[in-house]
Amino acid sequence: MVDYVQPAAAPKQVATRQALIEQYKLVRSFTEQLCEPLATEDYVVQSMPDVSPTKWHLAHVSWFWETFVLSAAQPGYTSLHPQYTYLFNSYYDSIGERHCRPRRGLISRPTVEETYQYRHYVDQHMLDLLTRIDEAQLTELTPIITLGLQHEQQHQELMLTDIKHVLACNPLHPAYLSERKHPPSSGSVPPLKWLSYEEGIFEIGHQGDGFAFDNECPRHRVFLNAFRLASRLVTNGEYLDFIESGGYSIPTLWLSEGWHTIQEQQWQAPLYWEKRDGQWHVQTLMGLRKMNWDEPVCHVSYYEADAYARWKHARLATEAEWEIAARDIPIEGNFVESGRYHPAPLASAGSDEQPAQMYGDVWEWTQSAYAPYPGYKPAPGAVGEYNGKFMCSQFVLRGGSCATPRAHVRSTYRNFFPPDARWQFTGIRLAGEV
Amino acid sequence: MVDYVQPAAAPKQVATRQALIEQYKLVRSFTEQLCEPLATEDYVVQSMPDVSPTKWHLAHVSWFWETFVLSAAQPGYTSLHPQYTYLFNSYYDSIGERHCRPRRGLISRPTVEETYQYRHYVDQHMLDLLTRIDEAQLTELTPIITLGLQHEQQHQELMLTDIKHVLACNPLHPAYLSERKHPPSSGSVPPLKWLSYEEGIFEIGHQGDGFAFDNECPRHRVFLNAFRLASRLVTNGEYLDFIESGGYSIPTLWLSEGWHTIQEQQWQAPLYWEKRDGQWHVQTLMGLRKMNWDEPVCHVSYYEADAYARWKHARLATEAEWEIAARDIPIEGNFVESGRYHPAPLASAGSDEQPAQMYGDVWEWTQSAYAPYPGYKPAPGAVGEYNGKFMCSQFVLRGGSCATPRAHVRSTYRNFFPPDARWQFTGIRLAGEV
Amino acid sequence: MVDYVQPAAAPKQVATRQALIEQYKLVRSFTEQLCEPLATEDYVVQSMPDVSPTKWHLAHVSWFWETFVLSAAQPGYTSLHPQYTYLFNSYYDSIGERHCRPRRGLISRPTVEETYQYRHYVDQHMLDLLTRIDEAQLTELTPIITLGLQHEQQHQELMLTDIKHVLACNPLHPAYLSERKHPPSSGSVPPLKWLSYEEGIFEIGHQGDGFAFDNECPRHRVFLNAFRLASRLVTNGEYLDFIESGGYSIPTLWLSEGWHTIQEQQWQAPLYWEKRDGQWHVQTLMGLRKMNWDEPVCHVSYYEADAYARWKHARLATEAEWEIAARDIPIEGNFVESGRYHPAPLASAGSDEQPAQMYGDVWEWTQSAYAPYPGYKPAPGAVGEYNGKFMCSQFVLRGGSCATPRAHVRSTYRNFFPPDARWQFTGIRLAGEV
Amino acid sequence: MVDYVQPAAAPKQVATRQALIEQYKLVRSFTEQLCEPLATEDYVVQSMPDVSPTKWHLAHVSWFWETFVLSAAQPGYTSLHPQYTYLFNSYYDSIGERHCRPRRGLISRPTVEETYQYRHYVDQHMLDLLTRIDEAQLTELTPIITLGLQHEQQHQELMLTDIKHVLACNPLHPAYLSERKHPPSSGSVPPLKWLSYEEGIFEIGHQGDGFAFDNECPRHRVFLNAFRLASRLVTNGEYLDFIESGGYSIPTLWLSEGWHTIQEQQWQAPLYWEKRDGQWHVQTLMGLRKMNWDEPVCHVSYYEADAYARWKHARLATEAEWEIAARDIPIEGNFVESGRYHPAPLASAGSDEQPAQMYGDVWEWTQSAYAPYPGYKPAPGAVGEYNGKFMCSQFVLRGGSCATPRAHVRSTYRNFFPPDARWQFTGIRLAGEV
Repeated sequence: MVDYVQPAAAPKQVATRQALIEQYKLVRSFTEQLCEPLATEDYVVQSMPDVSPTKWHLAHVSWFWETFVLSAAQPGYTSLHPQYTYLFNSYYDSIGERHCRPRRGLISRPTVEETYQYRHYVDQHMLDLLTRIDEAQLTELTPIITLGLQHEQQHQELMLTDIKHVLACNPLHPAYLSERKHPPSSGSVPPLKWLSYEEGIFEIGHQGDGFAFDNECPRHRVFLNAFRLASRLVTNGEYLDFIESGGYSIPTLWLSEGWHTIQEQQWQAPLYWEKRDGQWHVQTLMGLRKMNWDEPVCHVSYYEADAYARWKHARLATEAEWEIAARDIPIEGNFVESGRYHPAPLASAGSDEQPAQMYGDVWEWTQSAYAPYPGYKPAPGAVGEYNGKFMCSQFVLRGGSCATPRAHVRSTYRNFFPPDARWQFTGIRLAGEV
Repeated sequence: MVDYVQPAAAPKQVATRQALIEQYKLVRSFTEQLCEPLATEDYVVQSMPDVSPTKWHLAHVSWFWETFVLSAAQPGYTSLHPQYTYLFNSYYDSIGERHCRPRRGLISRPTVEETYQYRHYVDQHMLDLLTRIDEAQLTELTPIITLGLQHEQQHQELMLTDIKHVLACNPLHPAYLSERKHPPSSGSVPPLKWLSYEEGIFEIGHQGDGFAFDNECPRHRVFLNAFRLASRLVTNGEYLDFIESGGYSIPTLWLSEGWHTIQEQQWQAPLYWEKRDGQWHVQTLMGLRKMNWDEPVCHVSYYEADAYARWKHARLATEAEWEIAARDIPIEGNFVESGRYHPAPLASAGSDEQPAQMYGDVWEWTQSAYAPYPGYKPAPGAVGEYNGKFMCSQFVLRGGSCATPRAHVRSTYRNFFPPDARWQFTGIRLAGEV
Repeated sequence: MVDYVQPAAAPKQVATRQALIEQYKLVRSFTEQLCEPLATEDYVVQSMPDVSPTKWHLAHVSWFWETFVLSAAQPGYTSLHPQYTYLFNSYYDSIGERHCRPRRGLISRPTVEETYQYRHYVDQHMLDLLTRIDEAQLTELTPIITLGLQHEQQHQELMLTDIKHVLACNPLHPAYLSERKHPPSSGSVPPLKWLSYEEGIFEIGHQGDGFAFDNECPRHRVFLNAFRLASRLVTNGEYLDFIESGGYSIPTLWLSEGWHTIQEQQWQAPLYWEKRDGQWHVQTLMGLRKMNWDEPVCHVSYYEADAYARWKHARLATEAEWEIAARDIPIEGNFVESGRYHPAPLASAGSDEQPAQMYGDVWEWTQSAYAPYPGYKPAPGAVGEYNGKFMCSQFVLRGGSCATPRAHVRSTYRNFFPPDARWQFTGIRLAGEV
Repeated sequence: MVDYVQPAAAPKQVATRQALIEQYKLVRSFTEQLCEPLATEDYVVQSMPDVSPTKWHLAHVSWFWETFVLSAAQPGYTSLHPQYTYLFNSYYDSIGERHCRPRRGLISRPTVEETYQYRHYVDQHMLDLLTRIDEAQLTELTPIITLGLQHEQQHQELMLTDIKHVLACNPLHPAYLSERKHPPSSGSVPPLKWLSYEEGIFEIGHQGDGFAFDNECPRHRVFLNAFRLASRLVTNGEYLDFIESGGYSIPTLWLSEGWHTIQEQQWQAPLYWEKRDGQWHVQTLMGLRKMNWDEPVCHVSYYEADAYARWKHARLATEAEWEIAARDIPIEGNFVESGRYHPAPLASAGSDEQPAQMYGDVWEWTQSAYAPYPGYKPAPGAVGEYNGKFMCSQFVLRGGSCATPRAHVRSTYRNFFPPDARWQFTGIRLAGEV
């Protein structure tokens, strides 16, 4: 049984060997903990090209340790199997040929058990290495190890969103977990208010000692006009108004590409919404259940977020606006550690001065295309492929979700997905001019 | 462990209740016996649209019993799960909506264990029924039960060819079974001779009491010119000559559609042939191994069979020619019961009067398009969809293969596949004018 | 203006030089005569991959003369342009590389005028050659010249069906010609009767001195059961009954492949049928007009012909049955020379002993897959690619259409198209068991 | 013959009726002038979905006048044909249903002559209107008329790039025009230098009385780091170095999406480059000719521009950087009025203080995703669809090309295309950090 009190590891840039070892163990075991509810068969399926089988995630994150730490730092290290490099490389062209992404679900072997053996083989070597190396080596390796921990946390979130998609494809509507009892919600969501921000030159991006991905750097100045930001996320109930007012059939509300997409895909509602006997239901990780209208709307594409905002005579925030609004807000919210695995209704109105729900629940689409910051330099070598090569045709999302480890997110954190992606926990916050 | 001495059931049109029950048990248990070598993960994968996951086969054949026997004959019968009819209907439009074929591999549930529970639930009800009903009912049900047994045998062969494809897709080249020791072959294949047949009016098609599919009926007269037939199958070695003489790059050897297919698919050899370090290997159910040049060539499309024949200034037989040549030959050969799961080299030249290898080893492509026999009438009701609706754009194959249960095949048996199908055990026998 | 009294040439195997020259001129000029109603722009368009631009047809038939006659028989002959061989080869792999078929409509040059210059260049050289060569050479060349004439006649029909498709794609519904006045029809179609034929051994296929394509040979014996044949073609009105009784939504009426096709293509009626304000109209070469229910139904696929026959508890004839029924019937009917360019209602019941409408009006789908006759040998060299390589995945049609030159058709003539083709003038005659 | 001295109209926001009429006439006649070299057949072809037939361009720009001016301002106005609205609407969903874009090349009618009749019908009504209306109406209509002139100029450029693509698809390599004599170039391109710009807050975007598209508004402040910009465009010769050093086979030089694109499309060089007998040639509007290595490289995608910049350890400019660098430079260069229809080698080094070739020759890819400016509001009504709905998955290009009317371009002008577009005259200027 998953122990929800158990927090995911917080992979900070740590000072001591022992702390690093502890973090490694925590992150690695949390990955496996997330898999406990799964049947063996669930590990195998790839329900669409964007989704990877759980089995593949488990192996790929291990491959990452092998490739970027063990092969580099431990002379004579050999992988458990000579073909695993080919099978479990995700997208690192510098590393060599790899198995075609859309075919990950066609590979029944290694079995789940063999995949866990691979994990444990890697763990054993990693822990050996971390124990054995001298302080100088430890210092040298700490950045890549920290990256490996962050990388594994990203895959923890992907494992949840991917398995949700796999289970939702199944007409039997199986649940990942049975629903837990939640404290009764207040019964109504506080009304949406607007918070105003002054114009000015601001600094955004990462600076300092803590970990950040290269795409958060360098910290740099931007000029922002005055703007305003919604005090909370858009709810299912509010999004239903958009649907019922014909939002999906009014072309002028949509980006041209979005309009073509909803025609072609026949989208009439967010992903996982399903009407049964005239009643809206929603597929969750706890199975299909009746819609809770107070929850933040989730699993919408950028196109839908943008169209909804236009319909409300508003717009999405830029990522700089979001970051400025978020920078002083404590990182609290509905993260993966809550064990809820679903966005939660906003309980209280919060302060008058700060927006609520900035962290957790759902990733917030911004109107910012994913692009390099001024002066951006990707890391040298293969890890340089981590972020930079995706800076095209994607949009930035901010704030983390109910599937993100709390320690993984920051005010400067830039997530990114193509505008038609819906299987992540993605939602909407409105913005506008003052 | 699979017990190879154990024969597959011979589902004849039986007279007694006890014999029918025994046949039912034998066929059903042989299906499960074929799955014993599989890992749970192997049951889940669908490696191409034509392939079904093993799990699906196991459930679908059970669905057949439920739909055509239990639901009809046992008042109040309910399936183990209300959605299984939707999930496990293959192509019977009369039965209702069904799960889209190419998406069978996206369904992780029911699990393998639940699928076996479904089988056992059906078995229990079937055995109850067979024990309980009176003689009149038994007589009435015997034809559909016999069809169910034949149907399950067809899926036994498909399970083997499908799992072969699944494992072959895997860069790890896993084996279904480890190779068994075979008696040493004679060292050389007897030379190909030609057997001649006189012109005349002949009767082909099924007649009499034994079971046959509706597509083998009615028995009818055909006029045949004199023809000749090769004394044995084409071997890997002979096919290699075709490859090495440039067969795949000479357009005039090919049907137009075949030429386009080999260009588009970049075929340069039969399916499962793989050159490693300059040496031809072949993927078998026992894994990847060096080519045995004396074995019959296998896993060729109709296009390749036809092009090879043209290159040899010969042709493929018509199905009527094949049937006339085969009708007096005993049904012996390398069937699934041999446990070999692969075509075998021809050991001895055989008689001067009859062709060898007519049954077993590989299905033999004929030049006959799959069409209704004169006066053909499909069975009434949903089982009428079994064969007739596929009589378009396919070719007839004859004789059974190393994956066919011996008792399943007949001289009148008409198998059929589209001309580009290669994943079945399909091979070549030459024919020509006298 | 097209002179409808002018008959198309009858390219028989002629004895004298002068007759051959006359035939050459007649066929060539009829091709151009068919183009007279076209605007320059109409010559350019390729409305689907199966359709060729009129400009391409005009050039391709000239290329045929160049390639198979002039280049062979006239030393030092050079084409008008070195690239025309590449551009205007249709499918002869032996001749070399060629321009990709679906891209024929992307080529604006040569212009229409240049294309006619190319034709006239070829004509001049052909007429020179025919005048100049000695009798021995003439005798030697006569077969290939005759083939060239037949080839050009085939393209005359294709030009009409292709331009019909091009114009029908256009929302403006332009007409190729304005409608001519036809004699008033009798007002009602004679009732369908059944004609019976005895079982026996029959000879079918071509024999003798007259021209035939290689696919009509050799003449050979077939055994036929007794059968019956409808006295006339199926009419639009009868086909409407099929539509209105839900024919397109009952899966058990259809071949599996046909059912998928009508779903995917959303077919609800024959090609060119169009409902306007609740009234059925039809696109003809004379533009869009109200449906005449007495005309033979036209522009149906094999799937639709087969489904209609099944709905009527009948079937399509085999090509042997059709040929036996047709062999003694004079070749008369509604051919291209009528200038009607559309199937005509049957005026009178005709004889009690012979079916009506066997020739002309519409090509009749048979249930026979297009296959080699026993002992078939394609011609040597590149012309051997004319027919044989298409003997796969197509069905035979018999009898010619309202777009066929009368002299082009024979009782042994085998036309062939894939089962989903609808843009030819294709219709339905019912057959059945006695 | 095209008179190259004749300048394209300069559609400024004019004060007087007579000037407006003159501009209208000039722009409209320049459109037709560009078509003079075409054969009728050239007007019909659509060589890929992005390309429109010339005939369609001619009609669509007339439709624009009809829809946005005549129908609005002239009571009782009726189009020349009721179906033209359907056929010639490009993408205005507010106007209604329209003919599917990729099918524009399937429509042979209206003929070219009828299309010109349509143009002249519209011209007559427009000139009537412009003469007849009172000053108040004139003032009211001037903005939409000005937009119509700008719109027609945009299509003038598209007509040239589209017809170039159509002719280049043709294996005959026809030329739009024969090559004109150009003054001999200096023989070598001045070396690339770097120009530096200080950091600061800048204003970009349009302000004032002159015409601008809505996407250039509102003028707003941006903060820019110091940057540097190349003194000239990248040449063919420099790009060849990239090719020959293996640029197209080094994955780490490419955006992930770009790498997939070049694999899938098998790009090895810019569009229209063609190697013949080991020599690089290039398809131009004047036909195929040897490469001039001094010309700016052209017909590259964003992916190629970005990869080239990365290979040079540089980057592309942002659109703000480009605009700041360009704002004080006179709008001079190689525009459509030169009649050269191809980028020209840079003759002289120019000033030390300003970059050369900022206007004309080739559109310069920027690294800025096409997005709304802060406070952007699309125009109300259907013209609001002109720009805003494309602000997704495209990149901004700046500066105009050799196919752009000189009067059409501005320092604030934002052109935009998807990153894989290559058929426009698109090139590369390098930028970088100071």
